[in-house]
Amino acid sequence: MKDKVKIAVNGYGVIGKRVADAVRLQGDMELSGICDVVSDWRVKVAAHKRYPVFAFDSASQEQMAKAGIQVQGTLTDLLKSCELVVDCTPKKIAAQNIEKYQEARLKFIVQGGEKHETTGHSFSAENNYDTALGRESTRVVSCNTTSIIRTLTALKKAGLLKRARGTLLRRATDPWESHLNGIINTLVPEPEIPSHQGPDAQSVDPELDVITAAVKVPETLSHLHYWNVQLTREASKEEVLQAFSNSSRIAMISYGDGLSANNTVKELMLSLNRPYGDMYEVALWQDMLKVVGSELFFAYLVDNQAIVIPETIDAIRALTRLEENAQASIQKTNAALGIRQGAFI
Amino acid sequence: MKDKVKIAVNGYGVIGKRVADAVRLQGDMELSGICDVVSDWRVKVAAHKRYPVFAFDSASQEQMAKAGIQVQGTLTDLLKSCELVVDCTPKKIAAQNIEKYQEARLKFIVQGGEKHETTGHSFSAENNYDTALGRESTRVVSCNTTSIIRTLTALKKAGLLKRARGTLLRRATDPWESHLNGIINTLVPEPEIPSHQGPDAQSVDPELDVITAAVKVPETLSHLHYWNVQLTREASKEEVLQAFSNSSRIAMISYGDGLSANNTVKELMLSLNRPYGDMYEVALWQDMLKVVGSELFFAYLVDNQAIVIPETIDAIRALTRLEENAQASIQKTNAALGIRQGAFI
Repeated sequence: MKDKVKIAVNGYGVIGKRVADAVRLQGDMELSGICDVVSDWRVKVAAHKRYPVFAFDSASQEQMAKAGIQVQGTLTDLLKSCELVVDCTPKKIAAQNIEKYQEARLKFIVQGGEKHETTGHSFSAENNYDTALGRESTRVVSCNTTSIIRTLTALKKAGLLKRARGTLLRRATDPWESHLNGIINTLVPEPEIPSHQGPDAQSVDPELDVITAAVKVPETLSHLHYWNVQLTREASKEEVLQAFSNSSRIAMISYGDGLSANNTVKELMLSLNRPYGDMYEVALWQDMLKVVGSELFFAYLVDNQAIVIPETIDAIRALTRLEENAQASIQKTNAALGIRQGAFI
Repeated sequence: MKDKVKIAVNGYGVIGKRVADAVRLQGDMELSGICDVVSDWRVKVAAHKRYPVFAFDSASQEQMAKAGIQVQGTLTDLLKSCELVVDCTPKKIAAQNIEKYQEARLKFIVQGGEKHETTGHSFSAENNYDTALGRESTRVVSCNTTSIIRTLTALKKAGLLKRARGTLLRRATDPWESHLNGIINTLVPEPEIPSHQGPDAQSVDPELDVITAAVKVPETLSHLHYWNVQLTREASKEEVLQAFSNSSRIAMISYGDGLSANNTVKELMLSLNRPYGDMYEVALWQDMLKVVGSELFFAYLVDNQAIVIPETIDAIRALTRLEENAQASIQKTNAALGIRQGAFI
């Protein structure tokens, strides 16, 4: 096992800035630097945090310098100083960067916006850490897919999962850009059923019988999923709750505790001093959960900005073989990020 | 058969004002008057339309007179001049009025906010018109339940329905009061699964195997339902669409036609010169609808302000035996209100 692995983060947006922060919190990782193409407040924050800042190319390097940002060089320079790149550039841009990573003979991780084929492997820590060990690259699946894998894997491990059907209420846009892409006073269904998240979950676990439908809703806090699961047999509510609680990144919330909506759960995360009010866990309503015969009904929240961060950290450990054991990596990540298992409070 | 039946509308709110307008459009009904307790713009509109206005009691009569509204008398007076009362007062108030209707030996209809037990009969035109014939009273089920009955009855009549599971996205509040009860930037799940709509649908048709979960979303236009239905057998998409099209109050919409969200469908209704932009039909996305083996997935919109209006008109005909045949009543109502079957445009 190595001591510390040097990590570069390419793309310092919603995910990239969180990955950079998370890398800094791991005892076995070092942040070589971050790279972006813009030169506004977003990158200035990175400089303010004393993260080594690199520019995507010489043109953006010039812009950053003009904006008073201390630039260490370009992406090419950054790639010389690291062992693994986490690509957090916008959807479909990563595909163009991959060639550079491969030329520099670097391991790399892309995010869920990219296609499975870009790496040939899709990652979710509790489900398939082992198959990522030592690979050159992987794709950390998207926020929604991550939540699906976590919850259905928990049921699968308990021998309860037969078939899952979900309706996904997707936050309209991310908070930082809600002045640009917001919708108000309407709902926007995705035109096709199944929506992409079901098939995407199968890119991690082809055995899952899962079909999803999705709709955009006018809020920016988190996604909300409603599930109807056909169990393999009749089960008690307690048995199902126990299956979920065995998962390392599912935490229970209670309507009866006043956690009755997305905003209250967000406020709880802020009250727990989470950075950005981030919620890495799937927050599952335990009192709402209902078992009817061999059918299970439940709902949970997904923080689309945060849920993939611990997964990305685990993916780094798997690719670099920093840690051979999935649960050992998960426990390290959870401890570093303050992730709660079972319940938040 | 009688010639014209005299109808009173008690409660001139979101539903009451629409029922009054709809009664006026029927060749076999006459509006005796409307009754309310407030004396602001809402009732002034009724006076402006030259509807006979009655006050709930002498205190409200005095208030109305002060506000310059020409008042014909109190509810007691109105009840003397009609044969049937449609109660459109707020949730749970109707239960207190029923005694008055019974004392006046009047037939009456209550809305879906009341309990099934208040009348012992719950009504949805295409499902159980016959069982309401000549009854003293009935309850027109709520907007969501009406849509559930319509769609599931269509599948049932085609011999396709086995089991239905739905996720309901409920508009946060009605437009007229959205300055009072709105939610912004959050989602509010109902604390219990199943939500009340599933059992409510069984108050009309106990045979339905239906379970629902519901969540409030920050918009005011309409409800959006997502359904997963277990069919009795494998079926083609065309067969399912045909089953829905056989229903008299389901109209198809297409994502491919630009009708991609609640707001565009609302704008279509306004463009069709519907009063208030009302949509009496269930608007079902035909291109989104998907059949996977013997499972059916689909989504549709429900105009919570309008969908029960034609049902209420049919309920009047059933109770008063103005029309013995369900389809004959439905066709009269549909013609009077301009309801489209199959497609809007």
